[in-house]
Amino acid sequence: MTPRADATRNRARVLDSAHAVFAEHGLGASTEQIARHAGVGVGTVFRHFPTKEALLSAVLAARLDALADEAETLAAQGESGDGLYRLMRSAVAASSLKTAFAEALQRAGVDVSDAVAPARGRLTNTVGTLLDQAQRAGTARTDIEVRQVFALLVAATHAVTYLDDDPLRERTLDLILSALRP
Amino acid sequence: MTPRADATRNRARVLDSAHAVFAEHGLGASTEQIARHAGVGVGTVFRHFPTKEALLSAVLAARLDALADEAETLAAQGESGDGLYRLMRSAVAASSLKTAFAEALQRAGVDVSDAVAPARGRLTNTVGTLLDQAQRAGTARTDIEVRQVFALLVAATHAVTYLDDDPLRERTLDLILSALRP
Repeated sequence: MTPRADATRNRARVLDSAHAVFAEHGLGASTEQIARHAGVGVGTVFRHFPTKEALLSAVLAARLDALADEAETLAAQGESGDGLYRLMRSAVAASSLKTAFAEALQRAGVDVSDAVAPARGRLTNTVGTLLDQAQRAGTARTDIEVRQVFALLVAATHAVTYLDDDPLRERTLDLILSALRP
Repeated sequence: MTPRADATRNRARVLDSAHAVFAEHGLGASTEQIARHAGVGVGTVFRHFPTKEALLSAVLAARLDALADEAETLAAQGESGDGLYRLMRSAVAASSLKTAFAEALQRAGVDVSDAVAPARGRLTNTVGTLLDQAQRAGTARTDIEVRQVFALLVAATHAVTYLDDDPLRERTLDLILSALRP
């Protein structure tokens, strides 16, 4: 493996580990924990991400990228009309950690809009495709626009956070998503 | 008017004015502005509310009281099945200012749970009555619980905040409330 390929692989590994460690131990987890999880030295983590904010920002962008990848895979599977709902469930499930990242970065005064712009652009496009497929398959109302799908994602995310581990959580998520159905 | 009745009236007037002035000028509005709006001296404002936090906390409690009053009026009007939706619209309309108050108080480290507990208790009870009326009138699904109504309020509030002054805002609120319909 070339040094550059090695560096790229290490960076991806650190990002995956950072996500896993933050998810398990919260945002207070140390660089040492992340390095150990990734099987690299602390120096490697700092070389790729000189500050905690740089690391959080990159993890957030990677998570949005993964969601955009999932959206594109669902859209490529075609016209079942179910992809929109599957993506929305994934987005809601991933949202609490993403919100924690975004809030920590905002408190640190870090503007992440540039870092997440590419993933966000892909997501907006692909959610448009998924909505289109659902509307043609008859699983979504035809008078809905993409902005409303994102508004319902925001809505569902906060409802689920509010209900925390209330047993009504899943039924309430179903209820909110059902608002999109004809 | 007795001195005590006078003090009670002045306190209520300061609270109404504080709400109006904060709504128009933001939470940075001065005590002088509020006193002028209420037609009382600055000393009267400070006598009732020695700190900005005490004033914000009392305004928040008064707003929740007003919402609980409205809920009780709607419940007393009986069985049209429409009261639940009217209350939810009022709650969403009032929410952005209430959220701003609650966030400012949280940043100041003020715990408002005691101040708002009586209004919150009345609201929870009365929303239960309104849900019951809607279910018996056939305007709400019978498998919904009160906690889900509150989760949908949280959801709708955030969706509306997200859409800000997008023309899709009202239609999206309708969409989310429609999730409760049979």
